[in-house]
Amino acid sequence: MRTLVFNAGSSSLKFGVFDVASDTREVFKGSFERFREGMCDFRFRCGKADQRGSASHASIDEAIAAIPGVLKQFGLAAPDAIGHRVAHGGSTFIAPAILEDAIVVKIEDLSPLAPLHNPANLEAIKLCRALWPAVPQVAVFDTSFHLTNPTFATTYAVPEAWRRAGLRRYGFHGTSHKYVALRAAEETGQPLSNLQIVSVHLGNGASVCAVNRGRSMDSSMGITPLEGLVMGTRSGDLDPGAFGFLARQLSLSVADIETALYNDSGLKGLAGSSDMRDIEDRAAAGDAQAQLAIEIYAYRARKYVGAYAAAMGGIDALVFTGGIGENSASMRRRICDGLAFMGLQLDLDRNAAPDLSGRAAPQIQAYGSRVCVFVTETAEQLMIARETAQALARVAPAVETIPVAVSGRHVHLSREAADALFGKGYELTPAKPLRQPGHWAARERVTLEGPKGRLENVAILGPLRMRTQAEISRTDSFVLGIDVPVRESGKLDGTPSVTVVGPAGTFASDGLIVSARHIHTNPHDAARLGLTDGELIDVYVGDGPRRVTFAQTLVRVGETSFTEMHIDTDEANAAGIGACAEGEIVPGHAATLRS
Amino acid sequence: MRTLVFNAGSSSLKFGVFDVASDTREVFKGSFERFREGMCDFRFRCGKADQRGSASHASIDEAIAAIPGVLKQFGLAAPDAIGHRVAHGGSTFIAPAILEDAIVVKIEDLSPLAPLHNPANLEAIKLCRALWPAVPQVAVFDTSFHLTNPTFATTYAVPEAWRRAGLRRYGFHGTSHKYVALRAAEETGQPLSNLQIVSVHLGNGASVCAVNRGRSMDSSMGITPLEGLVMGTRSGDLDPGAFGFLARQLSLSVADIETALYNDSGLKGLAGSSDMRDIEDRAAAGDAQAQLAIEIYAYRARKYVGAYAAAMGGIDALVFTGGIGENSASMRRRICDGLAFMGLQLDLDRNAAPDLSGRAAPQIQAYGSRVCVFVTETAEQLMIARETAQALARVAPAVETIPVAVSGRHVHLSREAADALFGKGYELTPAKPLRQPGHWAARERVTLEGPKGRLENVAILGPLRMRTQAEISRTDSFVLGIDVPVRESGKLDGTPSVTVVGPAGTFASDGLIVSARHIHTNPHDAARLGLTDGELIDVYVGDGPRRVTFAQTLVRVGETSFTEMHIDTDEANAAGIGACAEGEIVPGHAATLRS
Repeated sequence: MRTLVFNAGSSSLKFGVFDVASDTREVFKGSFERFREGMCDFRFRCGKADQRGSASHASIDEAIAAIPGVLKQFGLAAPDAIGHRVAHGGSTFIAPAILEDAIVVKIEDLSPLAPLHNPANLEAIKLCRALWPAVPQVAVFDTSFHLTNPTFATTYAVPEAWRRAGLRRYGFHGTSHKYVALRAAEETGQPLSNLQIVSVHLGNGASVCAVNRGRSMDSSMGITPLEGLVMGTRSGDLDPGAFGFLARQLSLSVADIETALYNDSGLKGLAGSSDMRDIEDRAAAGDAQAQLAIEIYAYRARKYVGAYAAAMGGIDALVFTGGIGENSASMRRRICDGLAFMGLQLDLDRNAAPDLSGRAAPQIQAYGSRVCVFVTETAEQLMIARETAQALARVAPAVETIPVAVSGRHVHLSREAADALFGKGYELTPAKPLRQPGHWAARERVTLEGPKGRLENVAILGPLRMRTQAEISRTDSFVLGIDVPVRESGKLDGTPSVTVVGPAGTFASDGLIVSARHIHTNPHDAARLGLTDGELIDVYVGDGPRRVTFAQTLVRVGETSFTEMHIDTDEANAAGIGACAEGEIVPGHAATLRS
Repeated sequence: MRTLVFNAGSSSLKFGVFDVASDTREVFKGSFERFREGMCDFRFRCGKADQRGSASHASIDEAIAAIPGVLKQFGLAAPDAIGHRVAHGGSTFIAPAILEDAIVVKIEDLSPLAPLHNPANLEAIKLCRALWPAVPQVAVFDTSFHLTNPTFATTYAVPEAWRRAGLRRYGFHGTSHKYVALRAAEETGQPLSNLQIVSVHLGNGASVCAVNRGRSMDSSMGITPLEGLVMGTRSGDLDPGAFGFLARQLSLSVADIETALYNDSGLKGLAGSSDMRDIEDRAAAGDAQAQLAIEIYAYRARKYVGAYAAAMGGIDALVFTGGIGENSASMRRRICDGLAFMGLQLDLDRNAAPDLSGRAAPQIQAYGSRVCVFVTETAEQLMIARETAQALARVAPAVETIPVAVSGRHVHLSREAADALFGKGYELTPAKPLRQPGHWAARERVTLEGPKGRLENVAILGPLRMRTQAEISRTDSFVLGIDVPVRESGKLDGTPSVTVVGPAGTFASDGLIVSARHIHTNPHDAARLGLTDGELIDVYVGDGPRRVTFAQTLVRVGETSFTEMHIDTDEANAAGIGACAEGEIVPGHAATLRS
């Protein structure tokens, strides 16, 4: 499939043509920029050709209209599909969307969230739909990847009226963070869903993302791309009290301050230039402003790496990308120095000159560093081409129902735990068989004890396992007073321990989780339902006024699995269902944790 | 010495009487609050007496005027000294100041930085000076402790005009953070200057502070007490882009937004209450808003702990204080769970019910946890009493000169390094003796190599040491492209390594530092100069237009030291001095790293 990808900003247009296959390849790369009186600059690269010059297009609209001619000039056929980068997908778009009229309207509705970017993206979309009316087009959103962030990471501690008006954290650079996290996982040879990764995108815009077992958990940009790191011309984090200070001391309005925070702050505000190469050279020559700008830039980034390590409970990999992340060995070193306490140490030689050609993602950590450090070029347009193809290839899931099983709070015990709780060699008494063959609930019960309170009469599921694991609801976690992560069963690394109390003694569990909702299915049923392993899909559960859509339900395809959706008691109560219920797959878009 | 301490807010007055001795003791504790039509509530505690009730004071002024009578009623003599908490000391006050007229004027000048707090503090100061005209009075500032923060931690990435107008980070709760860090150090039995500590103050206001080897390096509050953690009614961190969003969507002004961020945000904005006990109980009963508020509160705090660990290169201790930090075992656990990757693990039983009576600071980490975790009641008023006494007892340093030595970039080599650089068993050739007996510069030279560039012809100082250490200037660090911390010589933990290149090979140094300026002196000279070990003093160096005041120069008193100030080449160039110069101690206030 030959896909044309557009990245239309307010002052420049980048586009590329990709052959989407098992190894997606960019066959053409073009840009138009510096639009001025009746002209602009262009650059086209195709195979060995590299043309630059100025063209007589006075606007992005005119440049887009010229693209069919440019493609013909390079012998490229009309595209089979078109992908568009769209800055803000709000909370609506968790995945790429095929650009039908209703979708275009929805994107228009999101313009207040990105008043600079979305209108420019939409303008390009409308022109392209007119120019190539028969070619399917897809919008890929910069925010979608972050819609898996938990509510506690996206909520500002502000009045409820503001939150209802839409003030929440979104995060951007999602396509880039997702791409480089996938690249890093590929290089480690492990599935992304096993890894805790921090992705550091340092371009003209800059952000850090915590990619927690395949899902974005947090990122440094907020409702706008102003929050977070120091950027080329943007401030990043600032005391919200600064607005009052500036209004009183310098009589500035919100609009004055905002304009300066976008355009005259960041590296430019600190050192008069937004070009890190320039600033590094001036710093080496002794320029104090440039030196301070570099120190602030690195310090802010290093603090975010530490914050996200704390958020995820440590990291397995750190990935650098974006112009500065790819090219400044010195900035990478400034950010990583001093992180040995979290098991991260750079190899100074490997860091000095990593070879990034051919989409390589070299590792630059020292031998013995527990954390892997990668550098790789980001490839947002390539990712957009791939996601465009996936969105078009996706078979709409049939409207089919799936049985829903509700899990109450329970524990799985190890031999050692059973000994400690009930006495050496004690055998649990199977009392009730479960739906999965060979599994049962025991007659015995235990108590769980946390810093705030206790949960009594907790069920034990048999047979014994290698590790002792407690599964509770979110409500239960507040009774115990413990911060319990939502996790797939069996993935206990970094989860808290809870004290299990039995008649003969106590035992500290290996893990304590809120079980993540998921659908078990097998290859046969998955094909019938139009599902693939690793997809996050939406499922309707319940009826009438209590009907609930469970977003982001993970699909797990196993050879011998029985098709069934698993939710916990909080979720069942929310949907007002009992022990026997059915879920219904929501047709339409889906996100995926796999590449 | 009997000291009366005032903490006057805009709506309440707290005061206490302390016997300042080797073990400072609070003998009286009082408060007036809830001022309303012609009356207010009071509480007085003295020995076993505990009186509460309402009094006929309509304002804080009237309450202050009543205090001499209250003290008499409890049989307490007139105070020997009075200490006042002052919220904002700007960049002027690095230490407590004796309240002479000129100092009062300086505090008035700082009111734009703290328009709510400083005027209230000043009002109390003026009344007390009129009521007790013969009693010496001292101002202790909430910001002073943080004035040791490096510029890269205090600078916002905003336009220069705003920074010149005074927009920078300050941080608050300084007295509390300093007190609890000192308490933690006492308990570990190590000097504060050896420890990397994160102090977490969770009261109605809340902040986190990175105390790096005795000095505050960073804290979560900024130019105002709005930045940072979620607080009782304050928002903490917020995307600066939120102001534009709120102005456009809800037509709010800066003043509207600021008022709501101070008064209707934080826990109150999230859950309708600013009382964590109330919120925890509601969360346990299933209230979703209360649950979310707790999760956000803990998550934000945990990220700051991670960020400051990254800032300092790991931590030795974490200290909890403030109402929530002292009382909520569950919140402490939420913040600490998942930090095992940085060597921190709580003991669940010790965390459950630490005994804080009698100023205890119990350790609640698990056996084997590399990081110590403390809980302790903060004692800001006790600390103010102590600092008031210190400020009054301080002997003004005589105007005396001290010789200044300028250190160029150099390395100290270990045996192993000399072997690697010059060949097995090589003996360096002493070429020039140094002022300290037995020390010399070698004829041989080496090159230092970083990710950005090289420094050639670097001096080697002999004799050999146990560890290989390079000392360079800040300018040099930008030539190498490495972020080099300012440190005392010999304290290499967590400092970066640099590649040392010799004729026979290369060697990675154990450490690389910018040497912190300091004064070596001995007990005899120290007494003569009015200096004590661990003080940070200001020193004038140079003449005429190049005269420089070197702030925060650390005094190190050693039995056999020769009195001499050490600075590096950047500092010498700034002051325009050559090899032989003299420094002059600035009379007046001094801060101290020791208790």
